[in-house]
Amino acid sequence: MGEVKVLGTFASPFAYRVEWALLHKGIKYEYIDEDLKNKSPLLLKCNPVHKKVPVLLHGEKPIAESLIILEYIDETWKENPLLPQDPLERAKARFWAKFAEDKCFASIRTAVFRSEGKEQKAAVEEFLEALKTLEEELKGKEFFGGESVGFLDLVVGWIPHWLPLFEEMCGLKLLDANTFPSLHAWGDRFLNVPFIKEKLPPSDKLLVRLTNVRKGLLNK
Amino acid sequence: MGEVKVLGTFASPFAYRVEWALLHKGIKYEYIDEDLKNKSPLLLKCNPVHKKVPVLLHGEKPIAESLIILEYIDETWKENPLLPQDPLERAKARFWAKFAEDKCFASIRTAVFRSEGKEQKAAVEEFLEALKTLEEELKGKEFFGGESVGFLDLVVGWIPHWLPLFEEMCGLKLLDANTFPSLHAWGDRFLNVPFIKEKLPPSDKLLVRLTNVRKGLLNK
Repeated sequence: MGEVKVLGTFASPFAYRVEWALLHKGIKYEYIDEDLKNKSPLLLKCNPVHKKVPVLLHGEKPIAESLIILEYIDETWKENPLLPQDPLERAKARFWAKFAEDKCFASIRTAVFRSEGKEQKAAVEEFLEALKTLEEELKGKEFFGGESVGFLDLVVGWIPHWLPLFEEMCGLKLLDANTFPSLHAWGDRFLNVPFIKEKLPPSDKLLVRLTNVRKGLLNK
Repeated sequence: MGEVKVLGTFASPFAYRVEWALLHKGIKYEYIDEDLKNKSPLLLKCNPVHKKVPVLLHGEKPIAESLIILEYIDETWKENPLLPQDPLERAKARFWAKFAEDKCFASIRTAVFRSEGKEQKAAVEEFLEALKTLEEELKGKEFFGGESVGFLDLVVGWIPHWLPLFEEMCGLKLLDANTFPSLHAWGDRFLNVPFIKEKLPPSDKLLVRLTNVRKGLLNK
């Protein structure tokens, strides 16, 4: 099928998911960093509908939307499966991935990048409520995928690395170890998985970039 | 694996998707109609996170979220596949399904059930823009799934049956045959597929129900 390329951008957890999945499978790929303020002709050609990263290019064929890319990767390279084999377990992993996107990520994005004051407070409350539900789901497990990293771990992989920076930006403590013991312990385990550890944006640079994104979006 | 049941509600296109998929596969199931103003203990037990229909029950095991249910059905009963076999084609079907949900359905829902005046006008424009993109994708094909109904056809199956009622409710013409020739012709073909034709809510009753939903949501 030819070469594998990932179009991503430094601060996007969505693009890291794709890289993590490829590393998990042991697939060699070329990473192309996109400047979202000045999108490349390649990105516009590969994702004309949304004009967003990540895009996976597999032998020139583009695939967009990070969760759909993860499914594609799992179906194309069978080694080290991301999703379980059983249809019911697959449905559960997809259910929680959708929940994590629609409820956890959407609310924290509003809180961090698109709101202040009262509106931010409401978004934070919504986020914490969703996080509690995720905590319950994780209870008693090493990883969301069971004994090792799977689909859902990659989808919520932004929590242990990006969330502490979101907390710093907003002056809030969100992932408290007492309130969220399972998520907290999982986060430590996740960040110590070798292929994750080697593919994370440095926190200091990431904080600068995320802070600039917030300023830009809030016109500050 | 035991009995198959669908928890749905009369006016929800999301629940019909699930019934259509089961009919397409020739799977016998029991339909249980939920009153969303007075949700049953069964629904609350089966979908405690969202408390929404549809839910598929397969031998007492619940699966929620209509697109995830469609994937489950396709993985569990292999006959008459909904998704193509090729990973790239599967990714495309999933991409357009997500687009149809996030862009087409979300905007028309805002327009019909959650807005008036200027806000409604903006939502309608957003919807028509998304519909144009979908029209382009369909061009030259009998069905989104190719020569017969597939995953994406079921996902956008609300367009030919629900959209005319949305138009009536808002006094708008949206799916114009000149502007959207492919979608218009596809809609006629889709509604004439035998298992679709036999499983559609009667338009007169549906209009009453949808109008009441709009009134309720807008506090009229």
